[in-house]
Amino acid sequence: MATLVSEGSSPEVLTRTPEPGEDAPLAPLYERIADRILGSIRDGILVAGQRIPSVRRASEQFGVSITTVLEAYRRLEDRGLIEARPQSGYYVRRTLDRAPAPARTASNETAAELTLSDLVMRVIHDWSQPGLMANFGVAAPSPALVPTTRIDRLLCREVRRHSVGSLAYERPLGLEQLRVQIARRALDVGVTISPDDIVTTCGAQNAVRLCLETITRPGDTVAIETPTYFGLLEVLESLHLRALEVATFPEHGICLDALDEALRRHRVAACVLCPTFANPLGHCMPTEKKGRLVDLLERHGVPLVEDDVYGDLTFDAHRPPPVKAFDRTDNVLLCSSLSKTLAPGLRVGWTMPGRHRRAVERLKFNSMLAVPTPTQLAAAAFLEEGGYDRHLRRLRRACADQLARVSDVVTRVFPLGTRVSRPRGGCMLWVELPEEFDALQLYESARAERIAIAPGPIFSATERYRNCFRMSCAVPWTQDVERAVERLGKLAGDQLR
Amino acid sequence: MATLVSEGSSPEVLTRTPEPGEDAPLAPLYERIADRILGSIRDGILVAGQRIPSVRRASEQFGVSITTVLEAYRRLEDRGLIEARPQSGYYVRRTLDRAPAPARTASNETAAELTLSDLVMRVIHDWSQPGLMANFGVAAPSPALVPTTRIDRLLCREVRRHSVGSLAYERPLGLEQLRVQIARRALDVGVTISPDDIVTTCGAQNAVRLCLETITRPGDTVAIETPTYFGLLEVLESLHLRALEVATFPEHGICLDALDEALRRHRVAACVLCPTFANPLGHCMPTEKKGRLVDLLERHGVPLVEDDVYGDLTFDAHRPPPVKAFDRTDNVLLCSSLSKTLAPGLRVGWTMPGRHRRAVERLKFNSMLAVPTPTQLAAAAFLEEGGYDRHLRRLRRACADQLARVSDVVTRVFPLGTRVSRPRGGCMLWVELPEEFDALQLYESARAERIAIAPGPIFSATERYRNCFRMSCAVPWTQDVERAVERLGKLAGDQLR
Repeated sequence: MATLVSEGSSPEVLTRTPEPGEDAPLAPLYERIADRILGSIRDGILVAGQRIPSVRRASEQFGVSITTVLEAYRRLEDRGLIEARPQSGYYVRRTLDRAPAPARTASNETAAELTLSDLVMRVIHDWSQPGLMANFGVAAPSPALVPTTRIDRLLCREVRRHSVGSLAYERPLGLEQLRVQIARRALDVGVTISPDDIVTTCGAQNAVRLCLETITRPGDTVAIETPTYFGLLEVLESLHLRALEVATFPEHGICLDALDEALRRHRVAACVLCPTFANPLGHCMPTEKKGRLVDLLERHGVPLVEDDVYGDLTFDAHRPPPVKAFDRTDNVLLCSSLSKTLAPGLRVGWTMPGRHRRAVERLKFNSMLAVPTPTQLAAAAFLEEGGYDRHLRRLRRACADQLARVSDVVTRVFPLGTRVSRPRGGCMLWVELPEEFDALQLYESARAERIAIAPGPIFSATERYRNCFRMSCAVPWTQDVERAVERLGKLAGDQLR
Repeated sequence: MATLVSEGSSPEVLTRTPEPGEDAPLAPLYERIADRILGSIRDGILVAGQRIPSVRRASEQFGVSITTVLEAYRRLEDRGLIEARPQSGYYVRRTLDRAPAPARTASNETAAELTLSDLVMRVIHDWSQPGLMANFGVAAPSPALVPTTRIDRLLCREVRRHSVGSLAYERPLGLEQLRVQIARRALDVGVTISPDDIVTTCGAQNAVRLCLETITRPGDTVAIETPTYFGLLEVLESLHLRALEVATFPEHGICLDALDEALRRHRVAACVLCPTFANPLGHCMPTEKKGRLVDLLERHGVPLVEDDVYGDLTFDAHRPPPVKAFDRTDNVLLCSSLSKTLAPGLRVGWTMPGRHRRAVERLKFNSMLAVPTPTQLAAAAFLEEGGYDRHLRRLRRACADQLARVSDVVTRVFPLGTRVSRPRGGCMLWVELPEEFDALQLYESARAERIAIAPGPIFSATERYRNCFRMSCAVPWTQDVERAVERLGKLAGDQLR
């Protein structure tokens, strides 16, 4: 975005003909002028205490009417960004940095029995409605970012090669070719494992549930980071488990001191974490801390179910190792999938359940005998020869880019006091608005405008995070997407007015 | 098989060159002579009390030595089929009819907590070993009986048409096209249902488990027929449910009086039955009895989980309606799949959970979010345009034929006192040997000869049926298959000697 030109530069006319592909009308002139000034504030060209161009000067500079400029300034004033000083003009009230990251979340004193409302089902149902203007709900890459034709081609080739119509029941462990590929890739991130210690599943959700069902009994308490993925809370509820929410740093994950204390004070059967680009906070636990986490859990005799589905989506040069890489006692049950990097519709996931392998295999068998063979064949072929690493490099760049863009717009259009997470991987942002804000209300008003988000309360066992929401950003940047973020900011602002 | 010629007919030489495809050595001459005589007894040419040819006469007739005939007669004598009368010769001791059907099974007085051994996992693992001479273990049609090429072709076409690589998470309910096809076919068997009241699953095993997990709580008691499918017992154990085994007639299913009494005496949370060609007994509950079953369960307020996977495999002109067809109060949760009629590797199943639809849908969501889309697309396409009914007609004929052939050989080669089920549909036989017989021992000795069967005890929550085993017969008839059945009979006979 162009920054506001300083005094004396040539005027610039904002009106222009829409570019190809722009089918919706442009935002009103006053909003676009307000945006320009906001950009200058954010970029540090205009700093706190500095006078912005007078109404008359801005009118000339932008080639618009006095009324339009006044309307733009009034909006900036409403948002607390500028202030009018009598007889003097308009001044920048505060320097706008990128929105700050959310603060550390707090532990709960007691483990909660879960009674999730039907909200989650309604929310995920809404996400799959056709005709959405923007879907910030589903945490999976847009097909535009995935080599869909190559996936289709490999699937068909494997179907013919193995005549899947003639395949009998697969062994409960899962397709061997796929387990071999998973074991090979695990080696790259520091996990040495035999293919026979891997169990394929119907996505990572299925893997996490099979692991938890194996290592817990109804009524047990499970320690989790907070906020946490709503799908995990659903699993805890359906298995009649109690959730113990433990304080979490949005920069580096669960607070080990708080976890240590929780494990001392409660009888905890398992711990479930997403340590590498968590859902929804996006943090990555530092490598050294992962080692300490393993030691801590080992000391307490508490197994870790590690959700690693976002691990491959790092924005940095090296993919961080999973916690499983530091596990010397088979105490970590790693779960992952290809849903966040290839295609969720394939439902290809797996787990490395350590010493619980036999029990998990048996539970998978009695849950579904086996998972479909054709999609596993396609996944194995793609991992072996589909250019998965090349694809990952592109996908990571795309996710990093989208996250930065969405974060920029959120910073620009959301009310003052808004905080935004700063992930170094994954595909989502966690937006925290001032306390009085109601994310469920935002969810409803956004829904009415065909914009999907994930409201904060579904990420807590105890209905916290009412002022927060999650935005998935693994969609290519379009004007629709930008406008949708702007609309969200507007709707949020309306609520706080 | 040619019958024994009567006195005076021309001698027949048994030695011959092997036919193409016969790579194994022929059975010893004396066994083949014994078979001939057995065939004559079974076919009623030789009846009880009748004298069979003298040793000398038979020696001439068959063109073999006296010693060979004596050995053959000794074997028939050992099996109680003929007797030597001093100074007179050999006489038929009893007329051999087709082996009788098993008797009614008995109820258990109390509900059993399940502690299945690792036997089931070992057994199903053995079944998937390569190089089996004959697999009577897996209850699914051999690929030779399935239009595998058409399945592959339709799957590929659908993959390309819908670009499955680009599909997002599916709605938890499952693929709409598939649900529409299932609803259409349901109408043909008397079940009127909306596609939105169907939930697709990862096979019927998955469907049954989702339903049971939805309508029960850990510790609940579930009424089942006995013997029952081992996969169901696995589900009950893993859900911490107690199994109440109710007396069952091998001709027409669970005893309603015994069920009524069980429901009066116990607090039962659900009933699970496979009323149409049950696994393993093969019975089909008469239509009128299905109506009475619905009324009985409704009166007791106990929901029925109906496993209908074999329903399409009828040997008669009309496919019997499922119990669900008589359900007026949404008290029946029907579960089925395409694993027994098309291809188990696709893992396409579904449930019609009646009033529990929302709860089942939610449990499916939290278990695995969704099942893979590509295989559902292929299944929908096959049901719509793949000639499913034509295929079914062929498959039914094949299954009926195999069952009759296997049953014949069992009758011929198994020890006296053996009983065999007489199913009018499905693809399996239940073989009951005399009390002292040990099916686990037969399982082991058959395994050593690369023949897979399903030993009786895995079909009971209380380790009953030690003298029984299940044979799946949905494999094309070959000499290997015939020889394998004969080997089983020999191994069983050895045990009782």
